[in-house]
Formats: sequence, structure tokens, C-alpha cells
Amino acid sequence: MKIFSIAKSRRLRSTPYTSRIEKQGVTAYTSYNHMLLPAAFGSLEDSYYHLKENVQVWDVAGERQVEIIGKDASKLVQLMTCRDLSKSKVGRCYYCPIIDNEGGLINDPVILKLNENRWWISIADSDVILFAKGLAIGNNFDVKIFEPNVNILAIQGPKSYKLMEKIFGKKITEMKFFGFDYFEFVDVKHLIAKSGWSKQGGYEVYVENTKAGLALYDELFEIGKEFNVKPGCPNLIERIESALLSYGNDIDNNDNPLECGLDKYVDLDTDVNFLGKEILKEVKKKGIKKKLMGVIIEAKEINVSKSIDLIDKKNFKIGELRSGVYSPHFKKVIGIAMLDKPYFEVSQTFKISINGNIFEGKVCDLPFI
Amino acid sequence: MKIFSIAKSRRLRSTPYTSRIEKQGVTAYTSYNHMLLPAAFGSLEDSYYHLKENVQVWDVAGERQVEIIGKDASKLVQLMTCRDLSKSKVGRCYYCPIIDNEGGLINDPVILKLNENRWWISIADSDVILFAKGLAIGNNFDVKIFEPNVNILAIQGPKSYKLMEKIFGKKITEMKFFGFDYFEFVDVKHLIAKSGWSKQGGYEVYVENTKAGLALYDELFEIGKEFNVKPGCPNLIERIESALLSYGNDIDNNDNPLECGLDKYVDLDTDVNFLGKEILKEVKKKGIKKKLMGVIIEAKEINVSKSIDLIDKKNFKIGELRSGVYSPHFKKVIGIAMLDKPYFEVSQTFKISINGNIFEGKVCDLPFI
Repeated sequence: MKIFSIAKSRRLRSTPYTSRIEKQGVTAYTSYNHMLLPAAFGSLEDSYYHLKENVQVWDVAGERQVEIIGKDASKLVQLMTCRDLSKSKVGRCYYCPIIDNEGGLINDPVILKLNENRWWISIADSDVILFAKGLAIGNNFDVKIFEPNVNILAIQGPKSYKLMEKIFGKKITEMKFFGFDYFEFVDVKHLIAKSGWSKQGGYEVYVENTKAGLALYDELFEIGKEFNVKPGCPNLIERIESALLSYGNDIDNNDNPLECGLDKYVDLDTDVNFLGKEILKEVKKKGIKKKLMGVIIEAKEINVSKSIDLIDKKNFKIGELRSGVYSPHFKKVIGIAMLDKPYFEVSQTFKISINGNIFEGKVCDLPFI
Repeated sequence: MKIFSIAKSRRLRSTPYTSRIEKQGVTAYTSYNHMLLPAAFGSLEDSYYHLKENVQVWDVAGERQVEIIGKDASKLVQLMTCRDLSKSKVGRCYYCPIIDNEGGLINDPVILKLNENRWWISIADSDVILFAKGLAIGNNFDVKIFEPNVNILAIQGPKSYKLMEKIFGKKITEMKFFGFDYFEFVDVKHLIAKSGWSKQGGYEVYVENTKAGLALYDELFEIGKEFNVKPGCPNLIERIESALLSYGNDIDNNDNPLECGLDKYVDLDTDVNFLGKEILKEVKKKGIKKKLMGVIIEAKEINVSKSIDLIDKKNFKIGELRSGVYSPHFKKVIGIAMLDKPYFEVSQTFKISINGNIFEGKVCDLPFI
């Protein structure tokens, strides 16, 4: 695979941690919400094993917040998501597909309820702020919408609990998954959620006070020595094995949430008002025409930089691979693919061309592990 | 300057031309509207000189289109821009700041009027489609909004006229600047505008038929041999010398168009209805508090990856540099900066720290050339 450099400019915003991760050995970036997101610290496999056994600190400031505050804030947030938030609680995070009036996915953020009239939408890579502003203006809602100065640090991996306990005390280990609360470090309180884009356990610190966040960053590496802490970033192997979906990679605006296996976040049988509700009811009635599934491919390497066709024995396209990676656990390539009807069945076989060679593959359920 | 690689994935979409430019020697990418935009083919200075004397073909597919079609299309387009489009003509391009209800810039696209009820917004790097969808839904406008399959090829440089004449005939040289029309190549008609993100002259081909576009791409390089054609991309030196503003770099949502010197595209004294109109009237009455200006710095190199403070003799911040580059023409660093009031005057001097060294600079008018 040919390597290309990333051209830096103010438009691909640096984070408060960029200068630190560059000293710590970041080797690749991607862009995420117009910001630099670290994509590699050397070997992907080394990082994968390290993440599964130890603890890593991730600069995921690219996961920007859209703050919505005001009298109509809850109404606007509910309008944008097909998940029923009428019983949502302050202090909790909610994974919420955001969809447009045709049922197409616009983002799949985690939404934090800060109080009854104040929300943070912790976004994947699309300008949800523009959708929210457009809706608010058009509906004449009484809200303020802006991007607050929040730069998330994720602490991920099985030893994250011990590390965070050492810094913030016992209470932080008692928080439930997708709960959040405020924890103090050197006189500054940070919003910390039990969450993160791995299935190895951990936390996300929503740093609002940049200076205090940098001090915390340094402390995490100082205290973390005994837990073999390393800098890291979302790991392609781990996230595919765990089937953590990536907006823009696995799912996009041409997909609806029912096609993406997000059924449990689609509340069609409630009274709440959200965009695309009638269309999704119709989709549910008629049945989906494509479905996101796992695939296992008898290959030893792959680089997915765009959709790759999955074909049957007669060279007929039955779906497309959207993400894929060699898994050292399965000793095969695994991936996430959109399969057309009626091919989205477990054990459906296919062929795929990787670098000009044909490999055999099989459809499976998600997640892999 | 340390070099980092770009992590490719489906989320940073390839263009139809990506495989070609990778054979032709692209060395760096940036991301633009969730797509790969070539950022270098080797030396920036070599490309600069070549562009000013010859002709280049650019893969600028990242300049995506937002198509707005339907009974309320013109109403929606006008609502989004402070430029009066009431007298706009089919077959013309219009540079239009898009602003929100607080007057903050959301994008600075070129808008093409395809017919009375159909527009293309040819966008800089932000998801204008989400803003348009939100506004249309909220206002209950009768429109369809989508991203058509259009992948622009730019042909730029003084010899672009001769090259395009050879392929499309004499008529293409008679088109006025910012006009567009349809021209045939091997039985397929392409929308071609006399436009592009350089001041060296040229065209943009709005390729809708991908296969025909690839054939045209190859023909441009075949016929272009006699004009010394090369692959290229927007050139940082040329675009700063020419003061072609870059959304996200030079201007962003925290700026209004009056602060950015875009006064002639802000039509406050007309009857048309657009967002932020009253706020901009107020800004105009009270006077702007900051202004985008050129700067010349007594230095031989610079890499601007984030804002750099401009300070006066007492170390007081008077503005910030947002883009900058060494200009072989001026034999100095030139840049685009936002200066605070009252420092936005020609000949205002300042100091700036570049890689730990202090350099002297001076404010000037834009463009440089």
C-alpha cells in the first residue's frame, strides 16, 4: 500500500493534545469533524494487543460536541433522533441515530442529557450543528446551538479502571456504563462518562478547561506507568471485531437505521415526534432491502479505502464491503458489509477481489466477538 | 516539519480520478467534504511556476454539489445567502457567502443557476446539505435536496484556453468568466464553467457521467502534451498571492462576511429575505471589530497548521495569522490574517513567532498580486 502524507492546515484543526501525541509517536492521522484524529502509533497489531491487555489514552477531540440549550432544546433533540428520549435521565448517555425526513442516517452520536434543557450531541463525522441550526431556524425554536470548547480524552482498556481510580478515587469505578458524573482533579471538575469507542472498557473525559485537561493528560501518563499506559487511538481491528459502527465507513445517508441493525434505537410505537417516522414505519412494514452484516474472508490482508463489491458465483453483485481488516484473533480478514436482499443471511458465501486476487468469503452476524 | 501519513478509509471518499493521480505522482492529500483532495505533487514551488506558465488538470471532486430543485428552490437558496440573487441568470455562477441567522459564515460556495427551479451549490468544506435540509424541513419548503454524482475536473493555467479549444472547439474560449454552458466530448455533454480556484485562468468541468469524465481526463493529458500539461491541485502559494479565501482556513463560522472583506456580496439594501440580515445591518452600522487583511513577514519559511498570534511591541495580541506561505515572487512569507480593531490598517507592524524565532511583519491589502 502506497503511503501519502496529510497536508496540515488550520482547516484540519489541531487539538490541545496534538503537540503531545506528536512527541509520543503518532504516525498517521485521519480527519474527523474538520479536526486531526490520530489513526496510528506505529503497528496496528501491537496497539490492538496493548489495548486489550493494558490501558491507552486517546486524543479523540475530533468527537466534537453540539450543545443545544434552551426552552425547546429537548423538542429539537427528539425531532432529530428516532430513539424515544421521553424517559431519558440527566446524567446518562444515549446512543441515538440521527436521521433526516427520508429516514436516511445523518450521524450516530452519543447524546448526553446535561439537564432538562441542555444537551450535548457527541458527534461522528458530519456537521450535525448545521442540521440542528437549520431545523431550529425553520421551526422558530427557542434554542441556542453552538460547538463548545470540549476536547475529549478517552482512557480505554481493562486497566483503565485502576488508573482512573488512582486519580479520581473509588467512586469513578462505581459509575454504570453510559453514566456520567463530575470528578475533580487539581481543583477542576471534569465531566467523565463510562464510555468510549472500544469494547475493552474505559472512560471519556469531556475536557472543557483546556489547561486542566493538559495537566490531566500528563498525570495519566505519569500515574499510568505502573499500568503500562500508552498513547493510542480507535483501533481498526478491535472496533471491527466488536462491531462498533463508523459513520461514513459502515453506514451513511443512503442507509436507514433498520438496514444497519439499529432496530433497538428505532422507537416507532411511541408518541414522540421525530423526522422520518412515517417512512421508517413503511420500511418496517415492507421489510428492508439491504442489511449490514459481518463477513469473514479467507485472506491475510486488506486495505479498504472504498466499497469493494461482493459477488456470487455468477459474478452478480450481492453486496459491498465497507470496512475490513486482518484479525489476528480469527487469522482471517473480517469486515462489515452491506448485503442486498435476499443475500443477507448467515453463511451466504461470496467472492471478493483484493488487489487483483479472488478470495472466498462468508456472511455472519455482528459482532464477531 | 514532521510528516504524517493519511489513514485512508471509505469515510474519506476516493474520487473517480484517485487511481489516476496516484499513478501520476500525488504525494499528499487533505480531506475536503469527506473526500480525498490532492494537496501536493512533489514540490509546491515547482507546481506554482508550472501553473503560472502552463496548464494543469486538477482532481477537485471534493468540491461537492448540493442540488436544490423544486418550487421553493430559489426561495431556499436566497434564504441561505446574503447576496441578492433576484436578478440572477440561468447559465451563470455566483460567488455567495452562506450565513446563519447570526451572520456567521457557514460556507462560501459558487452557486450555479441551472434553471429557474434548480440550483447547484458548489461547496467549500462544510456540510451545507445538512443546513439546507434542516431549513427546508423546518420551513416546509417544497424542494428536493441531494448530492448529485458530480466530480469536478479543473483545467487551470494560461494554456488552459488552447487545450480546451483543441478538445471542445472555439466556442469554449468565448465564454465569459463565471459563465457556464454545455460542451460535447465523444457524444457526452458536460457542464463546463469558466472558473476555478486559481487566478491563472481556466475551466471547471462538472463531470456527471463518470465514464465519459475518465475518458476526458485521459484526453486532456494526451492532447495536453504539446502544452506541457501536468497533474496539479490548488496551490497554496498561488492562492494566497491571489487572495482566494479558503473556508475553514482564512474564514469560519465565527466571522461574518463584512469582517472578511466580502462586502460586495452582502446586499443589505434590497428586499430579498435572507438569514442574519438584521444582524449584518447592525454590524455595518456599528462597524466591524476585526478584519481580514494580508500580511508580509520578513521570513523565509512557515507552516501554518493553526492560528498564530500576531503581537505588537508590548506583546499584546493584535490579530492572528490563519494561512501563510513563502512566496518566491516576494521572497518573503505572505499570509492572510484576522486583525483586531484598531490594528487592521495598512502598514501596521507586528511580531510573530515561527518555530521559536521572532520575525517582523506588516499588514497590507489583499490581494497581493
